[in-house]
Amino acid sequence: MFTLSPIGYVRSPYAETSQVPKGPGAEHQAEGILELLPEFAPGLTDIEGFSHLYVLWRFHQADSYDLMSMPPTADSPHGVFTTRSPRRPNGIGLTVVRLLRREGARLIVQGVDMLDGTPLLDIKPYLSSVPADQIARGWMTETEARRASARVDR
Amino acid sequence: MFTLSPIGYVRSPYAETSQVPKGPGAEHQAEGILELLPEFAPGLTDIEGFSHLYVLWRFHQADSYDLMSMPPTADSPHGVFTTRSPRRPNGIGLTVVRLLRREGARLIVQGVDMLDGTPLLDIKPYLSSVPADQIARGWMTETEARRASARVDR
Repeated sequence: MFTLSPIGYVRSPYAETSQVPKGPGAEHQAEGILELLPEFAPGLTDIEGFSHLYVLWRFHQADSYDLMSMPPTADSPHGVFTTRSPRRPNGIGLTVVRLLRREGARLIVQGVDMLDGTPLLDIKPYLSSVPADQIARGWMTETEARRASARVDR
Repeated sequence: MFTLSPIGYVRSPYAETSQVPKGPGAEHQAEGILELLPEFAPGLTDIEGFSHLYVLWRFHQADSYDLMSMPPTADSPHGVFTTRSPRRPNGIGLTVVRLLRREGARLIVQGVDMLDGTPLLDIKPYLSSVPADQIARGWMTETEARRASARVDR
Protein backbone atom coordinates (compact mmCIF):
# COMPACT_ATOMS: atom_id res chain seq x y z
CA MET A 1 0.00 0.00 0.00
CA PHE A 2 1.16 3.52 -0.64
CA THR A 3 -0.30 6.96 -0.41
CA LEU A 4 -0.84 9.68 -3.01
CA SER A 5 -1.61 13.33 -2.58
CA PRO A 6 -2.71 15.84 -5.22
CA ILE A 7 -0.16 17.99 -7.06
CA GLY A 8 -3.03 20.30 -8.05
CA TYR A 9 -6.59 20.37 -9.35
CA VAL A 10 -8.40 20.37 -12.69
CA ARG A 11 -10.61 23.30 -13.70
CA SER A 12 -13.13 21.98 -16.20
CA PRO A 13 -16.52 22.99 -17.63
CA TYR A 14 -18.05 19.77 -16.23
CA ALA A 15 -19.69 19.95 -12.82
CA GLU A 16 -21.34 16.50 -13.03
CA THR A 17 -20.43 13.21 -14.69
CA SER A 18 -23.62 13.35 -16.80
CA GLN A 19 -22.15 16.36 -18.67
CA VAL A 20 -18.97 14.55 -19.80
CA PRO A 21 -19.19 13.15 -23.37
CA LYS A 22 -18.85 9.35 -23.12
CA GLY A 23 -18.55 6.27 -25.25
CA PRO A 24 -16.87 5.47 -28.58
CA GLY A 25 -16.55 8.50 -30.78
CA ALA A 26 -17.08 10.93 -27.90
CA GLU A 27 -15.32 14.18 -28.72
CA HIS A 28 -13.26 15.70 -25.98
CA GLN A 29 -12.60 19.21 -27.22
CA ALA A 30 -13.34 21.05 -23.99
CA GLU A 31 -10.78 23.48 -22.68
CA GLY A 32 -9.71 23.28 -19.08
CA ILE A 33 -6.90 24.20 -16.75
CA LEU A 34 -4.43 22.02 -14.90
CA GLU A 35 -3.79 24.14 -11.85
CA LEU A 36 -0.72 22.97 -9.98
CA LEU A 37 -0.07 23.80 -6.35
CA PRO A 38 2.61 26.54 -6.37
CA GLU A 39 5.28 24.31 -4.85
CA PHE A 40 5.13 21.96 -7.86
CA ALA A 41 5.41 24.70 -10.53
CA PRO A 42 9.18 24.21 -11.06
CA GLY A 43 8.36 20.70 -12.31
CA LEU A 44 6.75 22.34 -15.39
CA THR A 45 10.03 23.89 -16.57
CA ASP A 46 10.37 23.53 -20.39
CA ILE A 47 6.89 22.06 -20.82
CA GLU A 48 5.94 24.71 -23.42
CA GLY A 49 7.65 22.70 -26.17
CA PHE A 50 5.35 19.71 -25.76
CA SER A 51 2.13 19.53 -27.76
CA HIS A 52 0.39 16.72 -25.86
CA LEU A 53 0.51 15.52 -22.27
CA TYR A 54 -0.65 12.52 -20.30
CA VAL A 55 -2.62 13.58 -17.24
CA LEU A 56 -3.09 11.17 -14.33
CA TRP A 57 -5.86 12.09 -11.94
CA ARG A 58 -8.09 10.65 -9.29
CA PHE A 59 -11.69 9.50 -9.78
CA HIS A 60 -12.57 11.31 -6.56
CA GLN A 61 -16.31 10.66 -6.79
CA ALA A 62 -16.01 6.87 -7.17
CA ASP A 63 -16.10 5.14 -3.81
CA SER A 64 -15.59 1.51 -4.82
CA TYR A 65 -15.07 -0.73 -7.84
CA ASP A 66 -16.72 -3.42 -9.95
CA LEU A 67 -14.67 -6.03 -11.81
CA MET A 68 -17.34 -6.29 -14.50
CA SER A 69 -18.45 -2.97 -15.88
CA MET A 70 -21.37 -1.92 -18.10
CA PRO A 71 -20.13 0.96 -20.27
CA PRO A 72 -22.82 3.50 -21.28
CA THR A 73 -22.73 2.45 -24.95
CA ALA A 74 -22.22 -1.32 -24.62
CA ASP A 75 -24.94 -3.95 -24.59
CA SER A 76 -23.27 -6.32 -22.15
CA PRO A 77 -20.75 -6.00 -19.31
CA HIS A 78 -17.02 -6.20 -19.93
CA GLY A 79 -13.99 -6.60 -17.66
CA VAL A 80 -13.22 -3.29 -15.95
CA PHE A 81 -9.65 -3.32 -17.32
CA THR A 82 -11.08 -3.13 -20.87
CA THR A 83 -13.06 0.01 -19.99
CA ARG A 84 -12.49 3.55 -18.75
CA SER A 85 -14.97 3.07 -15.92
CA PRO A 86 -14.35 5.26 -12.86
CA ARG A 87 -15.33 2.35 -10.60
CA ARG A 88 -11.97 0.56 -10.87
CA PRO A 89 -9.35 -0.72 -8.43
CA ASN A 90 -7.06 2.16 -7.46
CA GLY A 91 -9.36 4.76 -9.09
CA ILE A 92 -6.81 6.49 -11.33
CA GLY A 93 -7.92 8.26 -14.51
CA LEU A 94 -5.76 8.89 -17.59
CA THR A 95 -6.41 11.56 -20.22
CA VAL A 96 -4.37 12.79 -23.18
CA VAL A 97 -4.67 16.57 -23.53
CA ARG A 98 -3.27 19.11 -25.95
CA LEU A 99 -1.23 21.85 -24.33
CA LEU A 100 -2.41 25.27 -25.49
CA ARG A 101 -0.24 27.43 -23.24
CA ARG A 102 1.28 27.80 -19.81
CA GLU A 103 0.56 30.60 -17.34
CA GLY A 104 2.89 30.07 -14.37
CA ALA A 105 1.61 27.08 -12.42
CA ARG A 106 -1.42 26.72 -14.73
CA LEU A 107 -1.55 24.75 -17.96
CA ILE A 108 -4.37 25.69 -20.32
CA VAL A 109 -5.24 22.52 -22.20
CA GLN A 110 -7.75 21.09 -24.66
CA GLY A 111 -9.43 17.73 -24.31
CA VAL A 112 -10.38 17.54 -20.64
CA ASP A 113 -12.94 14.91 -19.64
CA MET A 114 -12.57 15.31 -15.89
CA LEU A 115 -14.95 16.96 -13.46
CA ASP A 116 -14.19 20.41 -12.14
CA GLY A 117 -12.15 20.03 -8.95
CA THR A 118 -10.61 16.67 -9.88
CA PRO A 119 -7.35 16.04 -7.99
CA LEU A 120 -4.28 15.90 -10.26
CA LEU A 121 -1.72 13.17 -9.59
CA ASP A 122 0.87 13.45 -12.37
CA ILE A 123 1.69 14.98 -15.75
CA LYS A 124 3.90 13.17 -18.26
CA PRO A 125 5.08 13.96 -21.78
CA TYR A 126 3.18 12.25 -24.61
CA LEU A 127 6.04 10.97 -26.73
CA SER A 128 4.85 8.54 -29.35
CA SER A 129 1.82 6.86 -30.80
CA VAL A 130 0.92 3.43 -31.99
CA PRO A 131 -0.02 3.84 -35.68
CA ALA A 132 -3.81 3.96 -35.87
CA ASP A 133 -4.02 0.95 -38.20
CA GLN A 134 -2.25 -1.23 -35.63
CA ILE A 135 -4.71 -0.65 -32.80
CA ALA A 136 -7.37 -3.29 -32.10
CA ARG A 137 -10.06 -2.15 -29.69
CA GLY A 138 -11.90 -5.34 -28.81
CA TRP A 139 -15.58 -5.08 -27.93
CA MET A 140 -15.56 -1.36 -28.68
CA THR A 141 -15.28 -2.05 -32.42
CA GLU A 142 -18.60 -3.90 -32.41
CA THR A 143 -20.26 -1.21 -30.32
CA GLU A 144 -19.13 1.47 -32.73
CA ALA A 145 -20.31 -0.47 -35.78
CA ARG A 146 -23.71 -0.98 -34.19
CA ARG A 147 -24.02 2.71 -33.37
CA ALA A 148 -22.91 3.76 -36.85
CA SER A 149 -25.49 1.49 -38.45
CA ALA A 150 -28.18 2.83 -36.07
CA ARG A 151 -27.31 6.34 -37.24
CA VAL A 152 -27.68 5.31 -40.88
CA ASP A 153 -31.08 3.74 -40.14
CA ARG A 154 -32.42 6.91 -38.57
CA MET B 1 -4.54 11.73 0.33
CA PHE B 2 -5.61 8.29 -0.74
CA THR B 3 -4.14 4.85 -0.70
CA LEU B 4 -3.35 2.38 -3.48
CA SER B 5 -2.61 -1.30 -3.34
CA PRO B 6 -1.25 -3.55 -6.08
CA ILE B 7 -3.60 -5.50 -8.35
CA GLY B 8 -0.64 -7.72 -9.27
CA TYR B 9 3.03 -7.68 -10.23
CA VAL B 10 5.14 -7.38 -13.38
CA ARG B 11 7.46 -10.19 -14.46
CA SER B 12 10.19 -8.66 -16.57
CA PRO B 13 13.71 -9.54 -17.76
CA TYR B 14 15.08 -6.48 -15.93
CA ALA B 15 16.40 -6.99 -12.41
CA GLU B 16 18.05 -3.55 -12.15
CA THR B 17 17.29 -0.11 -13.56
CA SER B 18 20.65 -0.07 -15.37
CA GLN B 19 19.38 -2.88 -17.63
CA VAL B 20 16.32 -0.96 -18.88
CA PRO B 21 16.86 0.79 -22.26
CA LYS B 22 16.46 4.55 -21.69
CA GLY B 23 16.32 7.82 -23.52
CA PRO B 24 14.98 8.93 -26.89
CA GLY B 25 14.88 6.13 -29.41
CA ALA B 26 15.17 3.43 -26.74
CA GLU B 27 13.51 0.30 -28.03
CA HIS B 28 11.19 -1.48 -25.64
CA GLN B 29 10.67 -4.84 -27.27
CA ALA B 30 11.13 -6.98 -24.18
CA GLU B 31 8.46 -9.52 -23.36
CA GLY B 32 7.06 -9.66 -19.88
CA ILE B 33 4.06 -10.80 -17.90
CA LEU B 34 1.42 -8.78 -16.10
CA GLU B 35 0.50 -11.19 -13.34
CA LEU B 36 -2.74 -10.19 -11.66
CA LEU B 37 -3.74 -11.35 -8.21
CA PRO B 38 -6.37 -14.06 -8.74
CA GLU B 39 -9.20 -11.98 -7.27
CA PHE B 40 -8.78 -9.36 -10.02
CA ALA B 41 -8.78 -11.82 -12.95
CA PRO B 42 -12.50 -11.28 -13.78
CA GLY B 43 -11.58 -7.66 -14.60
CA LEU B 44 -9.68 -9.01 -17.66
CA THR B 45 -12.83 -10.43 -19.29
CA ASP B 46 -12.82 -9.71 -23.07
CA ILE B 47 -9.31 -8.23 -23.03
CA GLU B 48 -8.10 -10.62 -25.77
CA GLY B 49 -9.57 -8.34 -28.47
CA PHE B 50 -7.33 -5.40 -27.54
CA SER B 51 -3.94 -5.05 -29.21
CA HIS B 52 -2.40 -2.46 -26.91
CA LEU B 53 -2.84 -1.59 -23.25
CA TYR B 54 -1.89 1.20 -20.91
CA VAL B 55 -0.22 -0.15 -17.79
CA LEU B 56 -0.03 1.95 -14.63
CA TRP B 57 2.51 0.82 -12.08
CA ARG B 58 4.46 1.98 -9.12
CA PHE B 59 8.09 3.15 -9.16
CA HIS B 60 8.67 1.04 -6.06
CA GLN B 61 12.41 1.69 -5.86
CA ALA B 62 12.13 5.51 -5.91
CA ASP B 63 11.89 6.92 -2.41
CA SER B 64 11.46 10.62 -3.11
CA TYR B 65 11.24 13.14 -5.94
CA ASP B 66 13.07 16.02 -7.62
CA LEU B 67 11.18 18.80 -9.41
CA MET B 68 14.10 19.29 -11.80
CA SER B 69 15.34 16.10 -13.38
CA MET B 70 18.46 15.25 -15.40
CA PRO B 71 17.45 12.60 -17.93
CA PRO B 72 20.21 10.17 -18.94
CA THR B 73 20.47 11.56 -22.48
CA ALA B 74 19.91 15.27 -21.85
CA ASP B 75 22.60 17.88 -21.33
CA SER B 76 20.71 20.01 -18.84
CA PRO B 77 17.95 19.45 -16.27
CA HIS B 78 14.27 19.71 -17.21
CA GLY B 79 11.05 19.90 -15.22
CA VAL B 80 10.15 16.46 -13.91
CA PHE B 81 6.70 16.63 -15.59
CA THR B 82 8.47 16.77 -19.00
CA THR B 83 10.38 13.56 -18.24
CA ARG B 84 9.70 9.93 -17.41
CA SER B 85 11.90 10.12 -14.31
CA PRO B 86 11.02 7.64 -11.56
CA ARG B 87 11.77 10.33 -8.96
CA ARG B 88 8.44 12.14 -9.35
CA PRO B 89 5.60 13.20 -7.06
CA ASN B 90 3.22 10.26 -6.59
CA GLY B 91 5.69 7.82 -8.24
CA ILE B 92 3.36 6.31 -10.85
CA GLY B 93 4.78 4.86 -14.08
CA LEU B 94 2.92 4.52 -17.39
CA THR B 95 3.82 2.13 -20.18
CA VAL B 96 2.08 1.19 -23.44
CA VAL B 97 2.43 -2.53 -24.12
CA ARG B 98 1.28 -4.84 -26.89
CA LEU B 99 -0.89 -7.70 -25.73
CA LEU B 100 0.41 -11.00 -27.10
CA ARG B 101 -1.95 -13.35 -25.26
CA ARG B 102 -3.78 -14.05 -22.05
CA GLU B 103 -3.28 -17.06 -19.81
CA GLY B 104 -5.88 -16.83 -17.03
CA ALA B 105 -4.81 -14.04 -14.69
CA ARG B 106 -1.58 -13.48 -16.66
CA LEU B 107 -1.16 -11.20 -19.67
CA ILE B 108 1.87 -11.92 -21.83
CA VAL B 109 2.90 -8.58 -23.31
CA GLN B 110 5.63 -6.94 -25.38
CA GLY B 111 7.25 -3.63 -24.54
CA VAL B 112 7.85 -3.80 -20.80
CA ASP B 113 10.28 -1.30 -19.32
CA MET B 114 9.56 -2.04 -15.68
CA LEU B 115 11.71 -3.92 -13.21
CA ASP B 116 10.86 -7.48 -12.30
CA GLY B 117 8.52 -7.40 -9.30
CA THR B 118 7.06 -3.96 -10.04
CA PRO B 119 3.63 -3.50 -8.41
CA LEU B 120 0.79 -3.14 -10.94
CA LEU B 121 -1.84 -0.47 -10.25
CA ASP B 122 -4.16 -0.49 -13.27
CA ILE B 123 -4.63 -1.67 -16.85
CA LYS B 124 -6.63 0.38 -19.37
CA PRO B 125 -7.47 -0.08 -23.04
CA TYR B 126 -5.33 1.88 -25.50
CA LEU B 127 -7.97 3.38 -27.75
CA SER B 128 -6.56 6.05 -29.99
CA SER B 129 -3.41 7.85 -30.99
CA VAL B 130 -2.41 11.38 -31.77
CA PRO B 131 -1.12 11.31 -35.38
CA ALA B 132 2.69 11.19 -35.21
CA ASP B 133 3.09 14.41 -37.23
CA GLN B 134 1.07 16.34 -34.64
CA ILE B 135 3.25 15.48 -31.65
CA ALA B 136 5.83 18.02 -30.46
CA ARG B 137 8.28 16.64 -27.93
CA GLY B 138 10.03 19.74 -26.59
CA TRP B 139 13.60 19.37 -25.39
CA MET B 140 13.67 15.73 -26.49
CA THR B 141 13.73 16.78 -30.15
CA GLU B 142 17.04 18.60 -29.66
CA THR B 143 18.49 15.71 -27.69
CA GLU B 144 17.59 13.27 -30.43
CA ALA B 145 19.04 15.48 -33.16
CA ARG B 146 22.28 15.80 -31.22
CA ARG B 147 22.51 12.05 -30.73
CA ALA B 148 21.71 11.36 -34.38
CA SER B 149 24.44 13.73 -35.52
CA ALA B 150 26.89 12.15 -33.04
CA ARG B 151 26.12 8.78 -34.61
CA VAL B 152 26.85 10.14 -38.08
CA ASP B 153 30.16 11.58 -36.88
CA ARG B 154 31.31 8.27 -35.50
